[in-house]
Amino acid sequence: MASTNYSFDDDYSYWNIDYTDDREDPPKEIIEPCDPTVRVELYHICMAGISLVVLLALSFLVKRRRLCRNSCGGVPGLLHPVGLFEHGSHKGIPAAVFGLVFCSLCVVVLDDKPFPFIAESSEDTKEYWKILALLYYPALYYPLLACAAVKSKAGYLLGSLLSWVHCGIQIWHKAECPYSLEIYKYFSLIRSLPQLLFLAFLSLLYPLLLVKNDETSGKVGSNECLSNAYYTDYVKIMLRKKPSQGAEPVQVSIPSRIGAVIRSYIYIPMEGFRVPTKLVITMTVAIVSVYQVAVLIIVGVIPTLQKARSGVQEDVSYLLDEFHVSLSQNRAEVVGIVKYYFWVVEVCYLSAVAVSCVLTLLTLMRSMVLHRDNLRALYRGDTQRVFNCKRRIRPSRSSIASWMCFTGYQAAHVCLGLVIQQIVIFLCFLLFAFLIVIPILTGQNMIIFQILERMWPFWLTLILIVLLQHMLARFIFLQKNGETFSVTNRRTLYIFTYLLFTFNVLIGVIAAVWRLVLTALFNVIHFCRLDLGLLNRGVEMFDPGYYSYTNFLKTEVSQSHPVMKAFCSLLLHSRRSERGGGHQSKDVEEGIQLMQTDHKYTKAARSKRVKAKWCLLFTLLNNPSLVDARRSIGHLSTDMVLNGQLSLSPKDSKDELDKPEACGSE
Amino acid sequence: MASTNYSFDDDYSYWNIDYTDDREDPPKEIIEPCDPTVRVELYHICMAGISLVVLLALSFLVKRRRLCRNSCGGVPGLLHPVGLFEHGSHKGIPAAVFGLVFCSLCVVVLDDKPFPFIAESSEDTKEYWKILALLYYPALYYPLLACAAVKSKAGYLLGSLLSWVHCGIQIWHKAECPYSLEIYKYFSLIRSLPQLLFLAFLSLLYPLLLVKNDETSGKVGSNECLSNAYYTDYVKIMLRKKPSQGAEPVQVSIPSRIGAVIRSYIYIPMEGFRVPTKLVITMTVAIVSVYQVAVLIIVGVIPTLQKARSGVQEDVSYLLDEFHVSLSQNRAEVVGIVKYYFWVVEVCYLSAVAVSCVLTLLTLMRSMVLHRDNLRALYRGDTQRVFNCKRRIRPSRSSIASWMCFTGYQAAHVCLGLVIQQIVIFLCFLLFAFLIVIPILTGQNMIIFQILERMWPFWLTLILIVLLQHMLARFIFLQKNGETFSVTNRRTLYIFTYLLFTFNVLIGVIAAVWRLVLTALFNVIHFCRLDLGLLNRGVEMFDPGYYSYTNFLKTEVSQSHPVMKAFCSLLLHSRRSERGGGHQSKDVEEGIQLMQTDHKYTKAARSKRVKAKWCLLFTLLNNPSLVDARRSIGHLSTDMVLNGQLSLSPKDSKDELDKPEACGSE
Repeated sequence: MASTNYSFDDDYSYWNIDYTDDREDPPKEIIEPCDPTVRVELYHICMAGISLVVLLALSFLVKRRRLCRNSCGGVPGLLHPVGLFEHGSHKGIPAAVFGLVFCSLCVVVLDDKPFPFIAESSEDTKEYWKILALLYYPALYYPLLACAAVKSKAGYLLGSLLSWVHCGIQIWHKAECPYSLEIYKYFSLIRSLPQLLFLAFLSLLYPLLLVKNDETSGKVGSNECLSNAYYTDYVKIMLRKKPSQGAEPVQVSIPSRIGAVIRSYIYIPMEGFRVPTKLVITMTVAIVSVYQVAVLIIVGVIPTLQKARSGVQEDVSYLLDEFHVSLSQNRAEVVGIVKYYFWVVEVCYLSAVAVSCVLTLLTLMRSMVLHRDNLRALYRGDTQRVFNCKRRIRPSRSSIASWMCFTGYQAAHVCLGLVIQQIVIFLCFLLFAFLIVIPILTGQNMIIFQILERMWPFWLTLILIVLLQHMLARFIFLQKNGETFSVTNRRTLYIFTYLLFTFNVLIGVIAAVWRLVLTALFNVIHFCRLDLGLLNRGVEMFDPGYYSYTNFLKTEVSQSHPVMKAFCSLLLHSRRSERGGGHQSKDVEEGIQLMQTDHKYTKAARSKRVKAKWCLLFTLLNNPSLVDARRSIGHLSTDMVLNGQLSLSPKDSKDELDKPEACGSE
Repeated sequence: MASTNYSFDDDYSYWNIDYTDDREDPPKEIIEPCDPTVRVELYHICMAGISLVVLLALSFLVKRRRLCRNSCGGVPGLLHPVGLFEHGSHKGIPAAVFGLVFCSLCVVVLDDKPFPFIAESSEDTKEYWKILALLYYPALYYPLLACAAVKSKAGYLLGSLLSWVHCGIQIWHKAECPYSLEIYKYFSLIRSLPQLLFLAFLSLLYPLLLVKNDETSGKVGSNECLSNAYYTDYVKIMLRKKPSQGAEPVQVSIPSRIGAVIRSYIYIPMEGFRVPTKLVITMTVAIVSVYQVAVLIIVGVIPTLQKARSGVQEDVSYLLDEFHVSLSQNRAEVVGIVKYYFWVVEVCYLSAVAVSCVLTLLTLMRSMVLHRDNLRALYRGDTQRVFNCKRRIRPSRSSIASWMCFTGYQAAHVCLGLVIQQIVIFLCFLLFAFLIVIPILTGQNMIIFQILERMWPFWLTLILIVLLQHMLARFIFLQKNGETFSVTNRRTLYIFTYLLFTFNVLIGVIAAVWRLVLTALFNVIHFCRLDLGLLNRGVEMFDPGYYSYTNFLKTEVSQSHPVMKAFCSLLLHSRRSERGGGHQSKDVEEGIQLMQTDHKYTKAARSKRVKAKWCLLFTLLNNPSLVDARRSIGHLSTDMVLNGQLSLSPKDSKDELDKPEACGSE
């Protein structure tokens, strides 16, 4: 039997060729501290300086534009990522920058060196430096966002340069010093892969945008966000008549049902609907966090296990003897068996990590499908479906705060969820391996099988009792009365209920264990999903994750309804195209006609007004969540709406940067 | 410091006066095997015989009645507990008998001696004997149910005799042999207390029913179940006009809310509504199972802990030295500290048991409140509220099978739930005691406080960030537009969302930990409640406990709607009262008038018919779950309904025992 074990072990050693030297001569593996040519402190000081310069340059650029607004189309652009969470801007840039920040956060939390400027810090001040580092990294990468926000050639050029410098130096660092002193020698390299990937992505994207901007600079103006075709497309698709679906078959076949379940786990982009930028960012960060946690839990355990395995000597048999564990009479065989057990633990651990990563990614994809369904339902005003109760959707203090937190919450839940999932699945695999697989292979310690064998009359009885009850219920206690069933033979029903009570208690114990296992597994697997309340439906809102999600949805839906955006876009677009022709106030007039209730209208105007009202009614009927926004307009004067928030006329006291608010709040 | 510990320990020794002799001379405590005068085997053989004789006697009694039916009012009474789950019969008897059977089940499962007839059994046959015992005990106590089902003086007399014999012999046994050989010397006595209590209850109830039956024998007839005032009362209360509630205040004060929450946990009987017998039985069994499990988990651990504590010698300090644990330099002090720690563990354990029992009982009471609310909602046809979806309520195979299992499932869930709850609460208490209370008292090992102290800037920052976000959301990002709020200052919102992202991840980790703890605690505490799905609302039905409960409700509601029962009761009652006067077919005529659609009616009959239809409509409107039952009548011929199932005329081929079916199925 032991020889079999050996062969397993030997097989496995082929899988780990890269670790063989580790095992053979552990004293050799001392990694020298390595200093790159450009020291980390120097890199950070320089980059912080360059970032500041870039910000100032951008600021100057925007100032110049604002002074000669007409020539440049009035680009919004104080140094802020104004389009960051809007549909108009490229979603890749904020997603990549958030990913970068998240990777830096992992470094700050895990590493001993808290702040890159400071070479060494005492234990007392470390906390403060760490807090400072949490603010520093977002600030460091901020220009990468801001360059995109300016939406000009200069901005893209600066962005390209900045990302090239970042990317170049970081790759140089990793090439010079690939080994890390802690945990595992390649740890630092492996975990910085996503960071390098994001920087490379930005280094490619910025030049691409620069080239694209050159080509389309004539077409794309300041209101790219609003004139974006997406919103008008959305409205067109919404207004398109749906094909009559006919009477659906009541009985759905099982394969088609399975297909529907599988489809519900795969996110396929849908025509006429784009996921909000915030969700794209959130998902990017979530996937990065899956990677980071997986790397951490593999690298933190597997090398140790492998070292322990290669270090197993004959001494281990004496140790086992002390605990009265006898694996074999032959000491050499004991070493083989122990090594084999270590190998099994390793395999279980790695497969648990793999399974939990796949499960987490699947649940995240399922989340995306549900996010889209929920958003579409809320645009339709179907709050019952999403929140399980009728609710008005409007921004509130907690909903805005939750909107701000959402990405962070999702990342944190993915991290913790993956760790818990991994532990639970690892334990399940271990139990499966040591209680079922190894006993079958070796023919020893068949505890589970012995218990099952001894208890088979009991299990058989319980199964028979369950079957008996269902058969009785079907053929004796149910009587067909026309279309419906009614209960008959009550005497027998009562007698059987009484006599089978004791068995039902035992069946109930099995059901209770199943309930326990199912609930635990379900909650562990779905822990990373914020769109799912883990508590009972009555108290769902006490679940902090789900609470955050519902509040996020409220803000998102109330502020970015595509129909509202399409309306704003149309208004602004027609205005700009007419401004070239000199009819500056025509659309304002039209708007006033639509809103005001004076009695001076001709017959034609009257019919136009009735038509407009019908259109309005139709739109509001299909998008009930807009009613709130409309009411708030009602309180403002028509002039204020059309001049103060939507128009671009020079007398406007606010600058154009308020447009996004206007998009959102109406 | 050690002196403090000693004083604690000494204090505690006063609490355990009864165990002092245990501790002083453990070798004395050898319990002799004890044989009662009436051996257990003899008792069971005799009682089985007597039970059989009683059943035969009851059978003879019923046969005699059926032969001269008119003189005795046609009591239903083959040997079956026909009224067992109906409202008419006394609920105490089935509840007590189910409790008795459950106590016997605990004995069968835990004890080594599986079957009372067999003194010794080999390991191979034990399983079979246990299964047989699971059938034997319900059969043994069956006559106690059957005696009540006959509803006659003779039945009550036999029931009294039987329960006296059972009770007398069991008390005699316990008085002769109070000690048990296993686990703990008083274990057998303590765990049989509910059994004795139920037998005493039956011994008192049967004579009481005998006396009562003598008094009311003239009034109470065969259809006690149907002529019961409860159903008509229910209808009266339902038809009574509700007092106009006026406009309720929108703002409810916090004390009144707390009051409402507390009230929702206390079951106060409600006028005009009685809980079904099945639920009363279930709750009795659930409470008994709480008692049995609590006794088991106390008795299985506490005596061992106390023995271990009293057996602590100076050797323990050497053992601790081996594990490099140094509690004190003085060996005597070490003994004191270890004893003190044992005492703390004991206190934690006992308080965990107490807390979990109280929590379980509270959740069971809350369950009762919700059972009633759910039943009332379903009588009204409000399935949305109970099942979270629209559903037709009608019996099906699985619903009847679940109805049969329900009591057993509830008991099993209470048992497992209590054990899990106890373990979790015990661990929490242990952590609380050893990480917080003892360090505060002794001033040593203040690990938690040191961590908190070192990390306070971190916690403070997180709290400040949360506050900052909420303040910003309230005062900067929210703008009041008339009645509603809209989002403003988007630039700042986006910048803060980006800059605070890293902090939000860390806040998210805390939220995730809180989610984990909350979900786990909620599910552990509510594990014993079947009326609560522990899974997410979309997949609630996969929870076996909740599935069983919803199916139980379906059967219960579809078969015992009080309005339907009141209707049947009125029909049968008027019929019986008129039978004395000779107008045998009047109500049948009325019924036919109400049902048939022929065109031969006079003006008066027409108005009467219209009135009847209105009444019908009103009833159906208020009790939509009756619509199903009505439709099934529609398929039968009117004659079949009125003569075949409801009438008591001699030409009826079925015997009167079918009446309960008639009550239920129409």
